[in-house]
Amino acid sequence: MTGPGRGRPRSEAVHRAVLSATCELVEEVGYERLSIEGVAARAGVGKQTVYRRWAGKSALVTEAVLTGRLAVPDQTVRDTGDLRADLLLWLQALVGLLGQEATASLVRATASAAADDADAAGELYARFTGPLHATLVDRLAAGVDVGQVRPGADLSAVADALIGAPLYRVLARAEPVTTSGTEDLLDALLTGLSPLPPGVPAEGIDRR
Amino acid sequence: MTGPGRGRPRSEAVHRAVLSATCELVEEVGYERLSIEGVAARAGVGKQTVYRRWAGKSALVTEAVLTGRLAVPDQTVRDTGDLRADLLLWLQALVGLLGQEATASLVRATASAAADDADAAGELYARFTGPLHATLVDRLAAGVDVGQVRPGADLSAVADALIGAPLYRVLARAEPVTTSGTEDLLDALLTGLSPLPPGVPAEGIDRR
Repeated sequence: MTGPGRGRPRSEAVHRAVLSATCELVEEVGYERLSIEGVAARAGVGKQTVYRRWAGKSALVTEAVLTGRLAVPDQTVRDTGDLRADLLLWLQALVGLLGQEATASLVRATASAAADDADAAGELYARFTGPLHATLVDRLAAGVDVGQVRPGADLSAVADALIGAPLYRVLARAEPVTTSGTEDLLDALLTGLSPLPPGVPAEGIDRR
Repeated sequence: MTGPGRGRPRSEAVHRAVLSATCELVEEVGYERLSIEGVAARAGVGKQTVYRRWAGKSALVTEAVLTGRLAVPDQTVRDTGDLRADLLLWLQALVGLLGQEATASLVRATASAAADDADAAGELYARFTGPLHATLVDRLAAGVDVGQVRPGADLSAVADALIGAPLYRVLARAEPVTTSGTEDLLDALLTGLSPLPPGVPAEGIDRR
């Protein structure tokens, strides 16, 4: 992703200036309206300098993300002993971030970068998506240990769904990404969509 | 997406040839290795002819998809009366398609196009993702009608998860897209992850 000149002091400063400009502009105007020209102007370098070092804006945004120049959510699902509350808190924080246009733009940008480049996909997964997935699986596994989740369930598939649901909304852009469905999805996963057989005390059931 | 010349017979033939070449090459080499040069060569037109009409390969692939030149799965979830079996059949068909590299490349390509262009996102949603989502919601709603799904559940959020889970796998590229987790995810959604205490269907009871 970087040109051969990286490492020399002057070159390193240019590199940093371009990444900083990218971050500023992603936050200010979003991915769609970000242009290489705009980044070059903000960084105070020539357009060709940027084109020489990065294949395009996807590569630029990916590197900006990977170098930690953009805000990342706290990734760990807490374990207070209350599985539903812990997952809900984490999911609502994730959805809250994805509901912000700047973050949504960035996620779409990284999805785009990952689509174009298997190496970028691998790097982005190792840095972001992988840890999100792993912390969900860990928390669900802790639920198995204390008898709150039945043993044998494919926890990885459940984590796919918990991350995939808001991701789908961000990418499809058809409905706003809000926390409104989060609780219902979580309840479906924890207690099932099926109605309970007759005789079960419905007042003891948490279903909104 | 189309140049001003579209509509004249000669121009229309060129347009069709380029879209056909795009489809052939997506299937043969995938999105990543697809190039405008390759498409132009396959279509027997000049590179500049393609560049004049489409902004880039994302726009090209999006139009190829939207004009129905690429295979689309049967989108309707059947209603045999057995909710689990109907959803499983549909999901396994979807996952089977997404597990093929040609389809996965195409989905990544359309995600990339949608990330770059809100109009493309809207068109792709109307043509593909929206109908997939709607048929799931309809089938779940039919389940409510016959007492197999509890009333009041956010069916849209559940559909997000059923589409989002395999979508996440395709985009993250970290694990193969297989049907292995499909059944477990479906069971989690239908019957819940919580274990059943002996004799009591207590998975819904408030755990807080």
